[in-house]
Amino acid sequence: MSNGGSALGGADASELFQLLRDGSPRTVSELAAVTGLARSTVGLRLDALTSLGLIGPVDPGLSTGGRPPKRVALLPLARLALAIDVGASHVQVALTNLVGDVLLRQRAPISVAAGPDPVLGRALQLVDPLLEELGRDRAAIIAIGVGLPGPVHFETGRPSKPPLMPGWDAFDVPGWFRDHIDAPVLVDNDVNIMALGEHSRLESPAGHFLFVKVATGIGAGIISGGRLQRGAQGIAGDIGHVRVSRGTGVLCRCGNEGCLEALASGPAVAAELSAHGVEARSARDVVALVADGDLRAIQAVRQAGRDLGEVLAASISFLNPSVITIGGQMAAAGEHLLAGVREVVYQRAMPLATRNLQIATARTADKAGLIGAGMLAIHHALSPEGLQAL
Amino acid sequence: MSNGGSALGGADASELFQLLRDGSPRTVSELAAVTGLARSTVGLRLDALTSLGLIGPVDPGLSTGGRPPKRVALLPLARLALAIDVGASHVQVALTNLVGDVLLRQRAPISVAAGPDPVLGRALQLVDPLLEELGRDRAAIIAIGVGLPGPVHFETGRPSKPPLMPGWDAFDVPGWFRDHIDAPVLVDNDVNIMALGEHSRLESPAGHFLFVKVATGIGAGIISGGRLQRGAQGIAGDIGHVRVSRGTGVLCRCGNEGCLEALASGPAVAAELSAHGVEARSARDVVALVADGDLRAIQAVRQAGRDLGEVLAASISFLNPSVITIGGQMAAAGEHLLAGVREVVYQRAMPLATRNLQIATARTADKAGLIGAGMLAIHHALSPEGLQAL
Repeated sequence: MSNGGSALGGADASELFQLLRDGSPRTVSELAAVTGLARSTVGLRLDALTSLGLIGPVDPGLSTGGRPPKRVALLPLARLALAIDVGASHVQVALTNLVGDVLLRQRAPISVAAGPDPVLGRALQLVDPLLEELGRDRAAIIAIGVGLPGPVHFETGRPSKPPLMPGWDAFDVPGWFRDHIDAPVLVDNDVNIMALGEHSRLESPAGHFLFVKVATGIGAGIISGGRLQRGAQGIAGDIGHVRVSRGTGVLCRCGNEGCLEALASGPAVAAELSAHGVEARSARDVVALVADGDLRAIQAVRQAGRDLGEVLAASISFLNPSVITIGGQMAAAGEHLLAGVREVVYQRAMPLATRNLQIATARTADKAGLIGAGMLAIHHALSPEGLQAL
Repeated sequence: MSNGGSALGGADASELFQLLRDGSPRTVSELAAVTGLARSTVGLRLDALTSLGLIGPVDPGLSTGGRPPKRVALLPLARLALAIDVGASHVQVALTNLVGDVLLRQRAPISVAAGPDPVLGRALQLVDPLLEELGRDRAAIIAIGVGLPGPVHFETGRPSKPPLMPGWDAFDVPGWFRDHIDAPVLVDNDVNIMALGEHSRLESPAGHFLFVKVATGIGAGIISGGRLQRGAQGIAGDIGHVRVSRGTGVLCRCGNEGCLEALASGPAVAAELSAHGVEARSARDVVALVADGDLRAIQAVRQAGRDLGEVLAASISFLNPSVITIGGQMAAAGEHLLAGVREVVYQRAMPLATRNLQIATARTADKAGLIGAGMLAIHHALSPEGLQAL
């Protein structure tokens, strides 16, 4: 059930941290009451967190109560998380504080097909100037979160037969960082990470949430029962190859026919427009045409939304989420994509499942991956196992 | 985060119980080490469990170590769980021990449309003779688990607009029992409960599991990340109304067209056979025809399997389970249904998702609902909140 034995072992160090993580100061008695732990145990764990510099005493003069200075609170800038978002043709890095706010970020163009060493090396080059700007060094990094555009075996941090990523299969991403930064490395696929980022920034908490990325590929990140669901092989949410009704005879790069991705991804919509004499080669081109008011592009995006809606209607039947947000480059086409999705979802899904369902464009836009990678890193670093390793 | 404050509060009473629940005896030191709790805290919680009669000392002469008699273990017959499975045309009750084994069960025919009072009353009549046979009385019942053939708001135990169940909408099922048995009542829909039952009896544990019931209706119970996923309105797994490709023009009782249930449920297959001159009116008739080797029935069941496979292929893309089991009356048609499912799943789902996927007929057969209702009741009764209420 647990390795246990350490002062930070068990479920409660995590619970203790969860309580402090909202930034509110708390006393030992409050923490003991809420966790059900002995005051002595709480005290020991707080000492450990204090000696790590993660929490500190709060000036009683600033708190509302008149108690002696025994309140402690998380120090958000005690350490930093390094967030890395690897895309198909770029890499982005950011430094976040311990509550996941992006402090600084930087981006560089590079193809993921260049292989892990050049791509991760490029990312690393971007980090030191950001650290310098904050007056910190690599030792300030408490953990690293990395998003990759393909399936990842989360437990080992190794990509798992990722298509279009030559040289990455089973590459030891955490091992690569070991020579450069002394911090744990968490790796997940970009859509799961974007889901974490978007979920952390929702207006109100949603225990059952779907994030859908529509770009060169199409994928979803699933939060169900309050937790990111990765599935048995870490590929839950791989909705790009679900068949849609309009797909008969349309071949997909996966070798099957009628896949959602072959009809509704950025390149698929661009190809369809090109075939009808409207020049477009990518999601970006499609979005630009829509912004220009091109009627054929608007119609094509709306139809892509309908195809996506067909798959989302099924996912709503399976998972019964309360919020779905749509991100990725194609989401920039805005209401047209969303209108197609809603049209089919409201037609196909059961009324009880859609009664309170929100479907919206992602709020975090192109920052979702960085925020999510930061959250993943922080969540691990401040978990019982993470704290033990500090 | 938690109400806390009681000796049984916090996450650890539950963890303590989980450790004892496998039936192995454990010492205070062992429990303290694994939970990370203070020995004194463990001692207090064990005292509480002992005074409730749920655990007891183990004779050291029977254990492998030479320690003094300080080991404790769960007493599986200390209390009983009452499991109630309400079907469309019958009610079943069972008494289980604290690890969920069905000790005795009984069944009576009654239509769920008779309404809650007659149906629950009939169930209750079946209970006392079973208790008597075990030499126990109603006070032995630690909790009651009830499965209903429709959507249920799990938190309140009230059915939520269930179709074909007149009089049940928003009926206070736990409240009804309050006058008869002094024990907490947990109510969920039958498919979720069957999923819990089947999951608890798998050959090896599966954190990502789908149970599919194919009978008069079609529904799924989802266990993801080790937990039953109910979704935002408690209707996760409602796959009967996902559209399938063969469904164009086929009307469903929900008002839509092309729903899985309109093509692959017992009545749908029976109707299709009847339309072709093979008399059949229910899932039972279809299964009997298949058992007789009727070729048209075998073909129809296999096609129903293909329709189901289409929806399951999508669910595999969403959830990436490692085990899917198929139960309900139509599962008695055995390999023919399964063959159709596998045919389409292996054709449509991504290779990585099906590489280690098991698809099988449910092992618990008609006991799934009773085992699951028992597990639901026990799990609650021995949770921190449940124990506080004892």
